[in-house]
Amino acid sequence: MRGTGYQYRPYTGQDMSNPYEYAEANQNRFLDEYQELLRIRTISTQPQHAKDVARAAEWLQAMMLKIGMSRADVILMPEGRCPLVLGEWDGAGADAPTVLIYCHYDVQPAAIADGWHTEPFEPTIKGDRLYCRGAVDSKLHVMANLKAVESWLASDEKPKVNIKVVLEGEEESGSENINAFIASEPERLAADIAVISDGAILAPDQPSLTYGLRGIAALELHVRAPISDLHSGHWGGSVHNPIQALCEIIAQLHDENGTVTVPGFYDDVAAVTAQDRALLERVEPYLQAEWDDVVSAPAVWGEPEYILPERLGARPTLEINGIQGGYAGAGMKTVLPASAFAKITCRLVPQQEPARVLNCLAETIQDIAPETVTVEVRPSEPGAEAVLLDIDGLAMAAAAQAYRQAWGVDPVYERSGGSVPICVECAKVAREVVIMSYGLKSGRAHGPNENIYLANFYKGIQAMITFIDVVGEGRG
Amino acid sequence: MRGTGYQYRPYTGQDMSNPYEYAEANQNRFLDEYQELLRIRTISTQPQHAKDVARAAEWLQAMMLKIGMSRADVILMPEGRCPLVLGEWDGAGADAPTVLIYCHYDVQPAAIADGWHTEPFEPTIKGDRLYCRGAVDSKLHVMANLKAVESWLASDEKPKVNIKVVLEGEEESGSENINAFIASEPERLAADIAVISDGAILAPDQPSLTYGLRGIAALELHVRAPISDLHSGHWGGSVHNPIQALCEIIAQLHDENGTVTVPGFYDDVAAVTAQDRALLERVEPYLQAEWDDVVSAPAVWGEPEYILPERLGARPTLEINGIQGGYAGAGMKTVLPASAFAKITCRLVPQQEPARVLNCLAETIQDIAPETVTVEVRPSEPGAEAVLLDIDGLAMAAAAQAYRQAWGVDPVYERSGGSVPICVECAKVAREVVIMSYGLKSGRAHGPNENIYLANFYKGIQAMITFIDVVGEGRG
Repeated sequence: MRGTGYQYRPYTGQDMSNPYEYAEANQNRFLDEYQELLRIRTISTQPQHAKDVARAAEWLQAMMLKIGMSRADVILMPEGRCPLVLGEWDGAGADAPTVLIYCHYDVQPAAIADGWHTEPFEPTIKGDRLYCRGAVDSKLHVMANLKAVESWLASDEKPKVNIKVVLEGEEESGSENINAFIASEPERLAADIAVISDGAILAPDQPSLTYGLRGIAALELHVRAPISDLHSGHWGGSVHNPIQALCEIIAQLHDENGTVTVPGFYDDVAAVTAQDRALLERVEPYLQAEWDDVVSAPAVWGEPEYILPERLGARPTLEINGIQGGYAGAGMKTVLPASAFAKITCRLVPQQEPARVLNCLAETIQDIAPETVTVEVRPSEPGAEAVLLDIDGLAMAAAAQAYRQAWGVDPVYERSGGSVPICVECAKVAREVVIMSYGLKSGRAHGPNENIYLANFYKGIQAMITFIDVVGEGRG
Repeated sequence: MRGTGYQYRPYTGQDMSNPYEYAEANQNRFLDEYQELLRIRTISTQPQHAKDVARAAEWLQAMMLKIGMSRADVILMPEGRCPLVLGEWDGAGADAPTVLIYCHYDVQPAAIADGWHTEPFEPTIKGDRLYCRGAVDSKLHVMANLKAVESWLASDEKPKVNIKVVLEGEEESGSENINAFIASEPERLAADIAVISDGAILAPDQPSLTYGLRGIAALELHVRAPISDLHSGHWGGSVHNPIQALCEIIAQLHDENGTVTVPGFYDDVAAVTAQDRALLERVEPYLQAEWDDVVSAPAVWGEPEYILPERLGARPTLEINGIQGGYAGAGMKTVLPASAFAKITCRLVPQQEPARVLNCLAETIQDIAPETVTVEVRPSEPGAEAVLLDIDGLAMAAAAQAYRQAWGVDPVYERSGGSVPICVECAKVAREVVIMSYGLKSGRAHGPNENIYLANFYKGIQAMITFIDVVGEGRG
């Protein structure tokens, strides 16, 4: 069979020789099973749902065996943290390439009081959409991919790739354990190509492939002056207010155009190439429309020489995520606080090392800090480097072909402003990494009334069927 | 009798012809009564202590009648708020001047877990000090003044002034009702001289008189950009972070010397005169020692052309009392918040009008606010003008004489950086206002292990005896 140029073929009878037709024939059952998983409250951040998470893991393990995978394990994590579920099918033989598919089956909390119009954990179909917590993030991906694998394993024509599916249970609560598991047993997830299946495409009729992700480096900045909180009337005017000093330091980290002024900050930054510009210009109208809808600030801000998708994906940033000092409650409390602090993260682009960026920042802060206060810079996380995926590799080509097959249009190429640490981890055990999403940004991941277009579930199944096909044929 | 030049006369027998001797003879009983009041948990901020506050009010009313005042009322406040106690003695006749003495009998909360070495509401004498919540703030003043009045009324020689004593029960919880009471029944508190008896003197052997108090004007500054909190990875670099914009605005409100850069801010400021400088230079070493002890920042900060007591009492300030935006909890949350805000107060000096200062500030903030964010300035309190007391008036002269009598040294003259709203209110019903304190700043008002030197209780009684004498004789 050939993935290229497939047109959607309606189910016409009992011919199951082809995974597309099998998927078409079993649409209703697939939807039922998806909804069955959605009903399990796999909220990894809430200990009272640990039993639900464990139940979902067993349900997924059984599902993997039922669809014909060779092996399926629930891998328990330390201290009762949410388990991994790992399925393997090795029927393509030792010489065939291996595809690893990563998804997560845990979800964010949800309560009707947050503004849901339906029961958050009862899948509800209205028109062409399905509403439920986890619908888009990320049980859509779990089930579309498992059902694509099922469609392959149930059809006469078997996949020409071995398949591993790893389902994480604590993505929404910090992914503390999957990295350690990959590090300690790298062979369990070893693959030629890893597919990270999470996130969202650009628009309902416009699939997109992410070829870059920003890294991250984080620090806390603490400013102190008096040894304890003071009465601002009694002592105001004689001591550098730590809130003010903190503001003065923060105000010196950008110029008026939004360019970071920290010496050395841009030293290693990979340039935005002509190819980047050409690709990202196609994304710009979609991002601008989304900005108008989601951000809707009085004006766009940022480095004027870069277009919006570049500012968001190809340029590093320095962002103040939080600030706190003194009294912020109701009414007046005339305190001159002993200290104030801010939480800062830098998003990094390729070639920037988190530790080096933090060093630049810490040195600059100490340089500009006035002698009237004490400043402490605390690097707060190990950080993560940016990821640039090979746009010309087999994995990306297969993904492009998969979207073409399922959506009927060529995908566009994006760079994400966020960081997806699992990409970095998977790159340690797979030669190529690609990100394949079937949901939409408008699907309200993490928010109330999370939803998907039902069509995206079926398109996702088709896309993964094609992806497995193209990789198996070794062509893009 | 003459207050001038009195030397302390030890009690020598049954001669009660003189208030000083009466006070001396009754020291032990006075101390017992002071401790009895200290044991009542008059915590006005905690509704569960409303009964204690009511009991104290009745105890004080009874005390006023017992010591011979003509009339004593417990004046109930709206919504069950802590009552005023108002005592009057009009025995000096309609032509004699009236002295109004203001104190407050409510206290801050206290719990042994806060770091007390003794039971907070059980007065404990160790060496020359007495430890208890309320010891210095302000039951010291309540009882020293009542016992001075008692000493006068019990002696053969009666006061040549009529006396009113008003005791507030909610000074520590906002003084919401006393202003309305004064406004609605100004004649109840009408006097020639009002003595505000609260606060602290400069050092154990150095009494001080405050001749100026700063005013206050307060506002909140809110900065908004995106319509809701955003993922800082997804949107960072394309929107002006409201925390950053807030910091940029705040950083522009002072120059590097600590001078406020808001145009018009200093327009109406009364100059620091040569007399001010001469008086305040005497205070400087005490304030510097206290700064070293209490503030202990890496360096003194503020307007370089003014000495420390001027920066603290005679110059206006702009202080950031609180700031909040984004996520300030443990770990990392990469939010780009929709908004951030700061709470700002200006301490004002004579001639500055709160509303005008707020207008200057609001206009400047709007002028410097970038167009990438929305800025809202909310004046949050009506504000209060600064107070400058007449250093050459009878009240101040009588207070100086009182300190000279009790402490054996001339007082120095201070300007307080704080605001004492009751001074402004009392100035509406009295021709002259003076502040008389008997406690020390080291007495840990509001903190654990609040305490007084016992000697200050007796010196306070003596001081008020002398004050009443000098005012009655109409001389300083």
